Amino acid sequence: MASTKDRILDVTAELFRRYGYTGTGMKQIVESASAPYGSLYHFFPGGKEQLAQEAIQRSGRMYFELWQTIFDAAPDAVSGMSDFFLGAAEMLRQTDYADACPIATVALEIASSSEPLRRATAEVFESWISGITARLVDAGATRTDARELAIFAIAALEGAFVLSRALRSTEPVDVAGAAVIGRVRAVLEASGLSPGPGRAG
Amino acid sequence: MASTKDRILDVTAELFRRYGYTGTGMKQIVESASAPYGSLYHFFPGGKEQLAQEAIQRSGRMYFELWQTIFDAAPDAVSGMSDFFLGAAEMLRQTDYADACPIATVALEIASSSEPLRRATAEVFESWISGITARLVDAGATRTDARELAIFAIAALEGAFVLSRALRSTEPVDVAGAAVIGRVRAVLEASGLSPGPGRAG
Repeated sequence: MASTKDRILDVTAELFRRYGYTGTGMKQIVESASAPYGSLYHFFPGGKEQLAQEAIQRSGRMYFELWQTIFDAAPDAVSGMSDFFLGAAEMLRQTDYADACPIATVALEIASSSEPLRRATAEVFESWISGITARLVDAGATRTDARELAIFAIAALEGAFVLSRALRSTEPVDVAGAAVIGRVRAVLEASGLSPGPGRAG
Repeated sequence: MASTKDRILDVTAELFRRYGYTGTGMKQIVESASAPYGSLYHFFPGGKEQLAQEAIQRSGRMYFELWQTIFDAAPDAVSGMSDFFLGAAEMLRQTDYADACPIATVALEIASSSEPLRRATAEVFESWISGITARLVDAGATRTDARELAIFAIAALEGAFVLSRALRSTEPVDVAGAAVIGRVRAVLEASGLSPGPGRAG
């Protein structure tokens, strides 16, 4: 069973995903976490900014672990990336287009107003870029190609989430996924390795 | 000289770009627009939601006109798309990573909480998709390819803005631009037309 602190962090990330940082109130957080109000300031004496910082860090790690689990379970890099985009589209459908990424909304809201939170979002994105780069290097890509591809995959997914949530359609995630998978295949082919047949290409 | 109403809408879009919908206060808007407080409710009797709706519509149109101007001034579709991404990266550098897109932040914040605003952001994205699709069809792409490419270009740019603002680096916009330009070139080549040499490929 999750500790009260972890429960507060998970609920915070979930609310950020739907309503953003400014649109999420402390009262809403304690109520959704069924936690006493005082526990917020016990665990997060720095208030909302500290809570947000830790929620960003925790959900950044959890999302990367999710990507890694899906990617590693696939027979090759093309299928791995494809499975992740298919999963993202499925999650949007299942949650009525509510649940996409808890980091992106906050990143856009606070990039020009909170330096500690901007840094927290930057660290998450950097960790995703390094993590995906490493896996693509393992799959045979050069480090330069792998880094560009990692940045491109994250940007395409985050932007597709913006469009998909607004349009209430998975078309943008599907289109972005196809483009990313095409690049993974092209990069691995250029490296002289067989990228594998892929599942959704 | 812009009317008071247009000035309020432009200032609102600028503040949304930096701080989002929830993070922008009505007081901040009238102060930045040097407009009397009463004028807000005179022009926007529906309050902040109506103001936001009109600001989204107006800046959605203005951004598309900007894209169109840049695209039409270029000698071919590849250069046109490339010039737009180069311009976006330059704007980020010049504004210290503050000014990206006024629609995306609001879209993520309100997709699950305000149906009128969600619809306004969806209409802007649809208008961008149709407008870019039409230009790519004119350049020789099939309608299916053109639509996918338009969605992909917008998603890649919006996602790259998220990363670039967080990381304070234009690398994501540069990488996304290169990927989009590669797709424009591939689609036009597949259509049997010369895509032109491009300027940044």
